[in-house]
Amino acid sequence: MYDIIVIGGGAAGMTAALYALRGGKTVLILESESLGGQIATSPRLENFPSVKAMSGEQFADNLFEQISAMGAEFEIEKAVDVIKREDGFFTVKTEYKEYEAKSVIIAAGVKHKHLRTKSEREDLVGHGVYYCAICDGAFYKGKEVAVIGDANTALQYALLLSGYCKKVYVYTLFDKFFGEKALVKALRAKDNIEVRPNTSVIDFIGDKELSAIEYKDAEGNIKRHEIPAVFVAIGQVPDNGAFSKVADLDKDGYITADENCRTRTEGVFVAGDCRTKAVRQVVTAVADGGVAATNACIYLESLEG
Amino acid sequence: MYDIIVIGGGAAGMTAALYALRGGKTVLILESESLGGQIATSPRLENFPSVKAMSGEQFADNLFEQISAMGAEFEIEKAVDVIKREDGFFTVKTEYKEYEAKSVIIAAGVKHKHLRTKSEREDLVGHGVYYCAICDGAFYKGKEVAVIGDANTALQYALLLSGYCKKVYVYTLFDKFFGEKALVKALRAKDNIEVRPNTSVIDFIGDKELSAIEYKDAEGNIKRHEIPAVFVAIGQVPDNGAFSKVADLDKDGYITADENCRTRTEGVFVAGDCRTKAVRQVVTAVADGGVAATNACIYLESLEG
Repeated sequence: MYDIIVIGGGAAGMTAALYALRGGKTVLILESESLGGQIATSPRLENFPSVKAMSGEQFADNLFEQISAMGAEFEIEKAVDVIKREDGFFTVKTEYKEYEAKSVIIAAGVKHKHLRTKSEREDLVGHGVYYCAICDGAFYKGKEVAVIGDANTALQYALLLSGYCKKVYVYTLFDKFFGEKALVKALRAKDNIEVRPNTSVIDFIGDKELSAIEYKDAEGNIKRHEIPAVFVAIGQVPDNGAFSKVADLDKDGYITADENCRTRTEGVFVAGDCRTKAVRQVVTAVADGGVAATNACIYLESLEG
Repeated sequence: MYDIIVIGGGAAGMTAALYALRGGKTVLILESESLGGQIATSPRLENFPSVKAMSGEQFADNLFEQISAMGAEFEIEKAVDVIKREDGFFTVKTEYKEYEAKSVIIAAGVKHKHLRTKSEREDLVGHGVYYCAICDGAFYKGKEVAVIGDANTALQYALLLSGYCKKVYVYTLFDKFFGEKALVKALRAKDNIEVRPNTSVIDFIGDKELSAIEYKDAEGNIKRHEIPAVFVAIGQVPDNGAFSKVADLDKDGYITADENCRTRTEGVFVAGDCRTKAVRQVVTAVADGGVAATNACIYLESLEG
């Protein structure tokens, strides 16, 4: 029986473990893929306070070492079910095993929806193909870049990039945006943003770095656009189905919670990108980790009476 | 005219600047005391992800260097008024000057709560009565000192002081601590720390320097304890009076805002300990900095639209 099982070993989950361990609790982290989560895929983490230019991977490694030294346990297993038992404790089932805990913190993250391209160039991710303009846009100051997407994230990316890039091309599937009007209006007013509606980006070209994208234009012609960077913002997808017995999910599948990181079930907390929130960044993920673990520690103290 | 004026140069304010600068905005930070804010007074920052045991001062220095290199401007002046003008821009008044900005982020932090004593000896602050053990503890090497408080800050102070003081007395209102178990355990293991539970310090005695404290013991008897220094760590209070023209304050003086960091005034955002929130930690402060600046950048783009 662990005090706390943390589901997800990204920035939120590992920070939750850090706080829980400092609170004197035993912690098991269950991670379905690889420790570090999304941030570990960022080539350079420049927007984390006090850390000058570090790779996302290094950040994740540091955090892993930090909590390992404090006694965190890890299993690379995907949680498939979380059940609150009659005795008030929790059973977390993975594909292989069952674990028991007094409290659970869900920090399962989200995945960027990847653009499915003709030649499936996943090797260019981090080398011209990015999924986070806030993380990686600044490497292209004064250059031309492209954004793919038509909702708030794409609009925000395009606006942020237009502040320091020479030109931003926005590729959208239809002839309209599906985001906030204020953002659309702001975008339309920018001289250095060119929207290319009714287009479909079908391939990424390049040797080790992106050199161009291939797209189908409004008339159905295949065209090539030489560009050093493209930011894909076609959505993120949570994967919270396993937690529906203990937490409410919104229509998009995010776990409903505010900054207190509490779910509808006493003893179950949620941290990071997998919960409902406005800004998904590593700073907000680690804040959630701290808050969820602080509240979990308080919950555990209350159990002890 | 700056794009953004950040009021407060602590973890929240400097992280807001980091995000704003990365968004290509011009930033002025106004700090009333010294850069770094509260965290700079912490002897060891052990609960910040990926940073293994660093002093709070080092953390603040790193963050200062990080944003200075990006072009942040600083003035050591206290903001005393923030006004939204008819043209939609803002005037921020300090004791000496006026500054203009298109947007304002309030990250003014909180101040140490002073102990209200019978004879209100505020004149002894800095002369035996202190609020920061890191800043002032070293003057009492080899001597006996007292700490008042029962949460993390008091625990950290006591541990730090025990490293070089002859003896540390800790006065707590109740018979338990409200801090991290790791800190409580460390404190209990120290031979030269004596906890005096269920006590209430009611007065500071001394001519020009503290010579003793007066306290009520567990049985309600008034006692005197000869001691040259006392470190008070009983919590914090906000100081947001200057911002009431643009933001709502709750009954305790915190700026009302949720995790979106928006105030009632378009273009004014709030970050860190000075806003209403459940958990005040450096991780939640930096999250707010990132969120407030991201929203400020989007606001600025919409202005241009």
